[in-house]
Amino acid sequence: MLSRKATCKSHGEDSSYFLGWQEYEKNPHDPVRNPSGIIQLGLAENQLSFDLLESWIARNQEPTGFMKKGGSIFRELALFQDYRGMPVFKKELAEYMAAIRQDRVRFDPNNIVLTAGATSANEALMFCLAEAGEAFLVPTPYYPGFDRDLKWRTGVEIVPIQSSSVNNFRIIPSALEEAYQHAQKLHLKVKGLFITNPSNPLGTTLSIHELDHLINFAIDKNIHIVSDEIYSGTVFDSPRFISIMEAIKKKHLENTAIWSRVHIVSSLSKDFGLPGFRIGMIYFNSKTLIAAATKMSSFGLVSSQSQFLLSKILGDKKFTRNYIMENRNRLKNRRKTLVSGLQKYGIRCLDNNAGLFCWIDMRCLLTSYTFEAEMELWRRIIFEYGLNISPGSSFHCPEPGWFRICFSNMSEETLDLAVRRIKALMDSSSPNAC
Amino acid sequence: MLSRKATCKSHGEDSSYFLGWQEYEKNPHDPVRNPSGIIQLGLAENQLSFDLLESWIARNQEPTGFMKKGGSIFRELALFQDYRGMPVFKKELAEYMAAIRQDRVRFDPNNIVLTAGATSANEALMFCLAEAGEAFLVPTPYYPGFDRDLKWRTGVEIVPIQSSSVNNFRIIPSALEEAYQHAQKLHLKVKGLFITNPSNPLGTTLSIHELDHLINFAIDKNIHIVSDEIYSGTVFDSPRFISIMEAIKKKHLENTAIWSRVHIVSSLSKDFGLPGFRIGMIYFNSKTLIAAATKMSSFGLVSSQSQFLLSKILGDKKFTRNYIMENRNRLKNRRKTLVSGLQKYGIRCLDNNAGLFCWIDMRCLLTSYTFEAEMELWRRIIFEYGLNISPGSSFHCPEPGWFRICFSNMSEETLDLAVRRIKALMDSSSPNAC
Repeated sequence: MLSRKATCKSHGEDSSYFLGWQEYEKNPHDPVRNPSGIIQLGLAENQLSFDLLESWIARNQEPTGFMKKGGSIFRELALFQDYRGMPVFKKELAEYMAAIRQDRVRFDPNNIVLTAGATSANEALMFCLAEAGEAFLVPTPYYPGFDRDLKWRTGVEIVPIQSSSVNNFRIIPSALEEAYQHAQKLHLKVKGLFITNPSNPLGTTLSIHELDHLINFAIDKNIHIVSDEIYSGTVFDSPRFISIMEAIKKKHLENTAIWSRVHIVSSLSKDFGLPGFRIGMIYFNSKTLIAAATKMSSFGLVSSQSQFLLSKILGDKKFTRNYIMENRNRLKNRRKTLVSGLQKYGIRCLDNNAGLFCWIDMRCLLTSYTFEAEMELWRRIIFEYGLNISPGSSFHCPEPGWFRICFSNMSEETLDLAVRRIKALMDSSSPNAC
Repeated sequence: MLSRKATCKSHGEDSSYFLGWQEYEKNPHDPVRNPSGIIQLGLAENQLSFDLLESWIARNQEPTGFMKKGGSIFRELALFQDYRGMPVFKKELAEYMAAIRQDRVRFDPNNIVLTAGATSANEALMFCLAEAGEAFLVPTPYYPGFDRDLKWRTGVEIVPIQSSSVNNFRIIPSALEEAYQHAQKLHLKVKGLFITNPSNPLGTTLSIHELDHLINFAIDKNIHIVSDEIYSGTVFDSPRFISIMEAIKKKHLENTAIWSRVHIVSSLSKDFGLPGFRIGMIYFNSKTLIAAATKMSSFGLVSSQSQFLLSKILGDKKFTRNYIMENRNRLKNRRKTLVSGLQKYGIRCLDNNAGLFCWIDMRCLLTSYTFEAEMELWRRIIFEYGLNISPGSSFHCPEPGWFRICFSNMSEETLDLAVRRIKALMDSSSPNAC
């Protein structure tokens, strides 16, 4: 009686990524009430700079209290129904997008389509760009939610671009071509590349050479590029972040066919740590797509209350500039705490310059070089050592033994405790050479 | 290169319903700045009771200022990521749903799935209940947006249930069976009935006999019933509102198969006049559907900031009870102003007890009994008399000459002016017998 979608059991919700959350919810660590509980290292959430936002709100009570220049704007916000979004909010978002890209590219507020988070943006893009049964190439390892967001209701297929620890999981030209050929063999029409830059789970940014190659590939194959840049505000170290839009402009391709086939997804959930407010967006260079996606945005609009508040926060340029800088510094320090802690106990992290997480090499703890052994290790870590970390298999990593550890969703003390628990794990293990 | 969805031109956006809005935006009436501009009578928006909400907010500054019992909850709200929604908000919503149904039915907060408005709820329901190419029966006349919400991205088909002014556009058993047979002829598998109660555009509620018949029909055909009850808080006159859930319970069908096939859509956009906040929901009796739709709600979640504020407003029971009552009275008076004004000039309205609009019989002004003549009249009314009203054809009304006029999205003075403009229209016309 129900649709296949309503009853299907796939699309990642049974993966260890989500199972780990369930285990955490049953027994969450609390320094006072439950000191031996599970520490949540599987949640890419940014809690490091809330004090800055909280003090802004304490200083600026008008925008939260539905006031503007002394008068109430409750009525205006409550009735706001223009699904193109608030012009002032889109103007501030466009300027913020430029600011986190060091003003090397400019964005037109009219080209922004607002969505209730990046989840909604990614699905809308698939509905706009592909029919059911067509495919997007996605570099591995990738965010487990993409199996739901890109495929579930759209019927679009993901063809993974394979990667290897030998190349630090970077996107290699031959792997890109192989994925394309693999799709052909499966009789799947490839409609585009879907990249995440900075990468989740790697925490690395794409170089200009990699971006150049991806652009040339998309031109050659006559396909789209979707660049999910929701972590662009978390780049805390060199090399600096290069947006796909900057790479396209550097190649002077603004007036060629590829220009209208390049699309950015962004949000305020990671940079600003505001996932609860559901603020996502798509940036297009194509008027047809702006019109189609705006119409689709009816299925997931952003609350006018949150649009208004964020237009005020982002509009405070001095605050925003300071927030971006300070947040980056704090992320950098946090990563250092985690990485140096792990290094002491012989665990290596992939060198990364962005994100809210590290990509950890735990191959030395596998009892065999298999995904079964990875899951066995994952269960040991969560049940015996009280750490919810995310195994590489949940990110479709082609090699067993890699894990993602988040570092910005807890206090410094809790992260220290997590590192000490990893030490205990190492002490009780007989690691192979890592 | 783009999907068919992105480039299609149908699904209502070219209808006079939306064209009227565009004309209004070019030349909107303003009593001071543009007194001869177009008056918007095409927007089902409730502005009548904002003073009540505004004064509640003035009296309760904690919840808007991210405060709870003197402490800041900004962090908690900003980070809120549970896509099942805030338990306290769902509890208050469940109690509010019962209150506007005179506590004749109770709702379990755990059976509520939150969505970013009813638009998102309706689409999610179609994804849950039907495959592309399957159909829902929808009584005419119906809200133009359904062509987008139910069909566009899902591929689900709408088969209209025909109606007639002879029966005051009520749902007639023979028309229901005819629609079902028509679907069979088109080789469309019928998965359910999609009703709007109270009806938009009619402003009428379904009787217990009509509901009984619809339930029997759904049992007989083994199909679902979706009851869109977003206008349930606008019932301002007798007969009282009867929810599909009350009708089912009256028939003692709680533990039979039909129970899990009955679903309610609701929102706070119409009753409370808060479309900008994007708060919609689905109420299910099926655990499988709760799970599937909750997962789908990721594509359109409600801002935690707005969930929190509304949990506080709805939680103030004294305020909410008073708001419901006072809002109904104001709607009743508004309708009276419009209906008695029109009657004076010989224009009849369908007898209605709910909604933010009346269904007006303007057949007497048609130059011929055709939809072309209806559009000709619509253009005359908007361009010569500056009134944006919505022609029946945009609601898939099977008979020409009917129009929807909204009465709660403007001041009393503006509504009076609109009525005077209709008088001028009548004075300059040679109406047939209406």
